[in-house]
Amino acid sequence: MTNRRQFLIACSSGIVFLAQSTSALPQGGPARGGASDPLIEDLVAGNRILAMEGVLDAMGHISVRSTARPDRFLLARSMAPELVTAADILEYDLDGNAVDARDRTSYLERFIHSEIYRARPDVRAVVHCHTASLIPFADSDVPMRAMYHMAAFVAEGVPVFDIRKAAGLTDLLVRDANLGKALAKTLGPKPAALMRGHGAVVVAASIPNVVGRSIYLDVNAKAQAQAIALGGKITYVEADEAKLRMSDAGEYARAWDLWKRKVAR
Amino acid sequence: MTNRRQFLIACSSGIVFLAQSTSALPQGGPARGGASDPLIEDLVAGNRILAMEGVLDAMGHISVRSTARPDRFLLARSMAPELVTAADILEYDLDGNAVDARDRTSYLERFIHSEIYRARPDVRAVVHCHTASLIPFADSDVPMRAMYHMAAFVAEGVPVFDIRKAAGLTDLLVRDANLGKALAKTLGPKPAALMRGHGAVVVAASIPNVVGRSIYLDVNAKAQAQAIALGGKITYVEADEAKLRMSDAGEYARAWDLWKRKVAR
Amino acid sequence: MTNRRQFLIACSSGIVFLAQSTSALPQGGPARGGASDPLIEDLVAGNRILAMEGVLDAMGHISVRSTARPDRFLLARSMAPELVTAADILEYDLDGNAVDARDRTSYLERFIHSEIYRARPDVRAVVHCHTASLIPFADSDVPMRAMYHMAAFVAEGVPVFDIRKAAGLTDLLVRDANLGKALAKTLGPKPAALMRGHGAVVVAASIPNVVGRSIYLDVNAKAQAQAIALGGKITYVEADEAKLRMSDAGEYARAWDLWKRKVAR
Amino acid sequence: MTNRRQFLIACSSGIVFLAQSTSALPQGGPARGGASDPLIEDLVAGNRILAMEGVLDAMGHISVRSTARPDRFLLARSMAPELVTAADILEYDLDGNAVDARDRTSYLERFIHSEIYRARPDVRAVVHCHTASLIPFADSDVPMRAMYHMAAFVAEGVPVFDIRKAAGLTDLLVRDANLGKALAKTLGPKPAALMRGHGAVVVAASIPNVVGRSIYLDVNAKAQAQAIALGGKITYVEADEAKLRMSDAGEYARAWDLWKRKVAR
Repeated sequence: MTNRRQFLIACSSGIVFLAQSTSALPQGGPARGGASDPLIEDLVAGNRILAMEGVLDAMGHISVRSTARPDRFLLARSMAPELVTAADILEYDLDGNAVDARDRTSYLERFIHSEIYRARPDVRAVVHCHTASLIPFADSDVPMRAMYHMAAFVAEGVPVFDIRKAAGLTDLLVRDANLGKALAKTLGPKPAALMRGHGAVVVAASIPNVVGRSIYLDVNAKAQAQAIALGGKITYVEADEAKLRMSDAGEYARAWDLWKRKVAR
Repeated sequence: MTNRRQFLIACSSGIVFLAQSTSALPQGGPARGGASDPLIEDLVAGNRILAMEGVLDAMGHISVRSTARPDRFLLARSMAPELVTAADILEYDLDGNAVDARDRTSYLERFIHSEIYRARPDVRAVVHCHTASLIPFADSDVPMRAMYHMAAFVAEGVPVFDIRKAAGLTDLLVRDANLGKALAKTLGPKPAALMRGHGAVVVAASIPNVVGRSIYLDVNAKAQAQAIALGGKITYVEADEAKLRMSDAGEYARAWDLWKRKVAR
Repeated sequence: MTNRRQFLIACSSGIVFLAQSTSALPQGGPARGGASDPLIEDLVAGNRILAMEGVLDAMGHISVRSTARPDRFLLARSMAPELVTAADILEYDLDGNAVDARDRTSYLERFIHSEIYRARPDVRAVVHCHTASLIPFADSDVPMRAMYHMAAFVAEGVPVFDIRKAAGLTDLLVRDANLGKALAKTLGPKPAALMRGHGAVVVAASIPNVVGRSIYLDVNAKAQAQAIALGGKITYVEADEAKLRMSDAGEYARAWDLWKRKVAR
Repeated sequence: MTNRRQFLIACSSGIVFLAQSTSALPQGGPARGGASDPLIEDLVAGNRILAMEGVLDAMGHISVRSTARPDRFLLARSMAPELVTAADILEYDLDGNAVDARDRTSYLERFIHSEIYRARPDVRAVVHCHTASLIPFADSDVPMRAMYHMAAFVAEGVPVFDIRKAAGLTDLLVRDANLGKALAKTLGPKPAALMRGHGAVVVAASIPNVVGRSIYLDVNAKAQAQAIALGGKITYVEADEAKLRMSDAGEYARAWDLWKRKVAR
């Protein structure tokens, strides 16, 4: 069966055009539709925003759960987030298998995403990052605390995943489903977890929110480190205040609009 | 009654053109005049300068008291400061009601502005920000001190507003006039106040000065944190020195000229 | 007498053209010559380089001693360094009087320059700055120390000028010759002095060297603060090592070439 | 004998063209071939990437061992790394003599490279830098430790070279082969060494890896300093984890591709 589909190509020059693919697709192939799939557009924007804001460098990734098939998720092929276009987005099942990879290679650590989507039906978007400001907390026994309303979700608690305690000696990478399951277990019901000697994982119910959380987790880490260095008594945002604040599902909407405009330039 | 008016549109490309509005205006509508109202021009510039300098990100706002009607103030519609143009400026009364909103939405926290203008006849411009360098001091019991003449106003003292002490459990936002009044009460006669778990408010007698104070409050916070980390004895700018320095009403004039040229590019 | 002169205008767009001035000049007027005076070119470049590198913001200044008349020095009119062109350069005598100001206003603190040139025949270039990284050391009793060879001159010692100890209550500004003399006295034979609650002054035998010293004084301050925060024992560059290193008069030549190319873009 | 050769010129505008040289070359001249020598292309890219990422400023250098003649290495003439093109690359023997310098001057400290290539047959690329974040560790007795997998090589240990202990009073520069040998001895079999009062040297088996290590050594230094400032217990990447991670020879391949695209813009 030949399935004609169109892809939206967002070039770094800001020019947008259509490319056609006539590849034969397996049954049960990607549920995403034509050229203007807003989920793919947002996923491409999310990649570029996180690179622009310094949350991701050449490494790290962002994924989103498929709307049509909740047992699938979308993630770029193995490449630098800053360069991702719609044509680079692959669909994966919850075992971390690409549905239609063709000649495109997969991120080694895609199991971070697959196992979190499996364990957390409420999660619709996942970021894995190595943001420099988070590494001190990932390696330290000083817990992250919420500094202000823009990072209220931190008040839920940010557990630390130590791969050595979960799986003994490794090269620190989440290379398979078992390591992904161990990370998802440490994450539990929380919005984010740090990974010792590695980085962090951030989850949310939408792309704008997982991008917003990732960006403000970085700001919060720097602010908390600075507050500790001042040497005084610190009053953090408390859990009940944070819960009220987080009831606003569109808390990063205004920021998301600005970020999207900036990466579209 | 049909009231033909013209607005100055300052585009991000730096091109300026005129747009016409023929909307029916209520009696007692905006006192601002034609296309070249310098107050609106400066308010637009202030929005963009604070974004350029990293004092504001997608959130936060700057307002100015109306020259013609001191019981009114001007503030952008709910949007990212970096994108504000003259067409986005609304006029508000001191209850926080937009005079001519049409389909334009208002910032949730406009009561920060309205209640400070009500309580402080000397104040003609207000900035509300979440600058990252201020959050450590907002959450700490270490008071801000003036590090140098560019931030001499800090020597007046920067009180901290804890919304929980003023109003019990909230989502941390200044959502109504009562919360605005509580904040204005903490601010008292000072040039700035920190807001625990949230950010800061800065006031002055003009747009250039409130912008200058906001930018140098950020520099001062970083310098003070660094001075504390050095571990020695610190000699801050003293109140009498600061008072002399602040007698120069145009202390940020040269900087303002530069900043305006930069955002006009 | 009408004196036709040409000025080199270095525009921010990088375009260079000639402007003619036919103003009547007093006897003994500026010794600088035609359109391509390399000293003025370097002074303009120095202004822009220090702005580009973040050593100067809208405030602060750089001057150079006149080659033809060592009792004169060149300094921009009162304006932001980033915007200075050759047409903005004024000549001053050692009392801080502009030789040919016409309608151009002078920096209030030009006495920093005049009194240092008077006291220090070896000095041919002076920078006055408020670089944020220097303020913590200017207010602290922790002395600056040389961290590496690029800032070897710091090993000579960086005294702190406290205007209050020299002149009692002021607005912190060096507003007259007496305050300038007091600052020059604290500077003594050193390459730099900090100013409590204010900033710093840096001197050298050439524009490239005073620019290089100003830039690496900033880097050195950040590195020293970070070294102190590590909490271990620090081995600074020693005075005898520094003296050997400083014997190279062209130590910033390669950097100067790069900086000039960058601001010419 | 006249030897016609072509050089690849990589302009800062991204335009690439060919230049011809008809200089007479000595027997045993440079082994590098025509216009598209990928090693020279990568060396030029490495210079520009390290400048773009702030690892090098106007000073410092990167070299690569010749593929054809392992007793030779390639290094730019004495200039700012940001401006290096293929025509600026010289070939050196292991005594630090340029094979065909013509009128091009050499870096004073080329002996850092020559003596490391002599002592370490496994090393194929060397960076010498003065990155600001490394200076605090170079001057301190607090050892660098590996914070995360992107800088796993730090777990091998980063010795500190104190030129005073090796050679008594100097101007801190590695001016001759003896000083180069002393540095190489301190480096031993390690991937990097700090230089007290000076900077660092980083080595690897390829240009992408030495560039990657230099960039992430900088990130690691900042993260470690921040972790120490948090005041808690820190769990660093352990040597056995690092060894597993470092077994991936292409660990910086994805980053290298991104960096090369960025400097080619």
